[in-house]
Amino acid sequence: MTRYKATISYDGTLFSGFQRQSHARTVQEEIEKTLQKLASGQPVPIHGAGRTDAGVHAYGQVIHFDLPQKRDLEKLRFALDTQTPDDIDVVDLAIVADDFHCRYQKHSKTYEFLVDNGRPKNPMMRHYATHYPYPLDINKMQEAIKDLVGTHDFTGFTAAGTSVENKVRTITEATLVQDDKTGFLVFTFSGNGFLYKQVRNMVGTLLKIGNGRMPVEQIKVILDSKNRQLAGPTPAGNGLYLKEIRYED
Amino acid sequence: MTRYKATISYDGTLFSGFQRQSHARTVQEEIEKTLQKLASGQPVPIHGAGRTDAGVHAYGQVIHFDLPQKRDLEKLRFALDTQTPDDIDVVDLAIVADDFHCRYQKHSKTYEFLVDNGRPKNPMMRHYATHYPYPLDINKMQEAIKDLVGTHDFTGFTAAGTSVENKVRTITEATLVQDDKTGFLVFTFSGNGFLYKQVRNMVGTLLKIGNGRMPVEQIKVILDSKNRQLAGPTPAGNGLYLKEIRYED
Repeated sequence: MTRYKATISYDGTLFSGFQRQSHARTVQEEIEKTLQKLASGQPVPIHGAGRTDAGVHAYGQVIHFDLPQKRDLEKLRFALDTQTPDDIDVVDLAIVADDFHCRYQKHSKTYEFLVDNGRPKNPMMRHYATHYPYPLDINKMQEAIKDLVGTHDFTGFTAAGTSVENKVRTITEATLVQDDKTGFLVFTFSGNGFLYKQVRNMVGTLLKIGNGRMPVEQIKVILDSKNRQLAGPTPAGNGLYLKEIRYED
Repeated sequence: MTRYKATISYDGTLFSGFQRQSHARTVQEEIEKTLQKLASGQPVPIHGAGRTDAGVHAYGQVIHFDLPQKRDLEKLRFALDTQTPDDIDVVDLAIVADDFHCRYQKHSKTYEFLVDNGRPKNPMMRHYATHYPYPLDINKMQEAIKDLVGTHDFTGFTAAGTSVENKVRTITEATLVQDDKTGFLVFTFSGNGFLYKQVRNMVGTLLKIGNGRMPVEQIKVILDSKNRQLAGPTPAGNGLYLKEIRYED
């Protein structure tokens, strides 16, 4: 048995998320179908490092799977890349230790969230950025986003009823810049793990702060109170990108 | 009667082009359906300045149409923008002279063509740039593209059997730059009019030159010989954008 680690990118628009589910098109199902063909009909289950939601995109999602034989890496990568549908690309393939696990191995993730604050909006980007047509004070948001950096209990930023018990996570980087060419707002978050809908809820709160409907101190208030009711609404997944996953060795 | 001129942008991916045709979704049909609703059921035919093909996008397409009454411009623009499907945006609306005609009024057009020369390719851009995975010498293409500027008979760059008699057009600008952020090649062409498939055939020829399979002098040879057989293949429409239309007054 040989364990393979693949880095994949995908356009989330036409997927009901990464994780396999019945009666819905998912990234996992498409890749498993392709691997099964490449493995002479044997089912090949895959594991993904991050379970992206419906509409969420990825540039650097990591998966792993096992095959009975050692294959030529570039040939296998090319076969996977070309035989999966157009909205999935297999960027890189490597052989890893038999006990490597893309989700349980220690790693950090980077997410990006794109907001189109322009008028007119760009129809070519309607699936690739969240449109927010109201005025935004970027300085206020840049001030507020700093409060997310560090080790905190992020209960106030996750979906209510999440089953994970420990909601303490560490964010090592949280930045907001405006792309000088497109004018889009680019939020970047790196950390050792993120709770369900955490990135989107942080962005939703920052947008309310930028629009003047929440004070700059609101991030601290939510972290201290752990109260989801005090955070902003969850923006659509179409602006969210799983950008990169880095493993420690 | 009041004549309106609208600037519209659209994502060409799910359209069979601009111009109305039976059994196919077109930009013209979607806008005419919306205008008919806004005009209490009266049909409102529209005219477009450029007839973009299937898959071709627009940032600055111009259309005109007549309505019986004078309407509040921003209210009408907003109604058109929000009641047309998501892949069409109405950017600007103005009242023009009764004899204005978006196609016959003297104007110049700018087209852009995006080529994704990267590996791995970007799945988010698969409908918005043409992927060309072979090596390209950009300097050679930048040298060759200059030969397109000026007044020439472009017969060799249009589709065979085009019914237009006069194939002389003037190109005022023809440039190629590499976007330093995305790495995409951006071809820009401005001129007083373009023949059917002319922009795509010029790009297809330049790609062959960049890949070393045609000499840098090939552009001149095609212009002189007027022979379509000597030009490169027509690349897919997904990389093409109708960028801007400028009218002389």
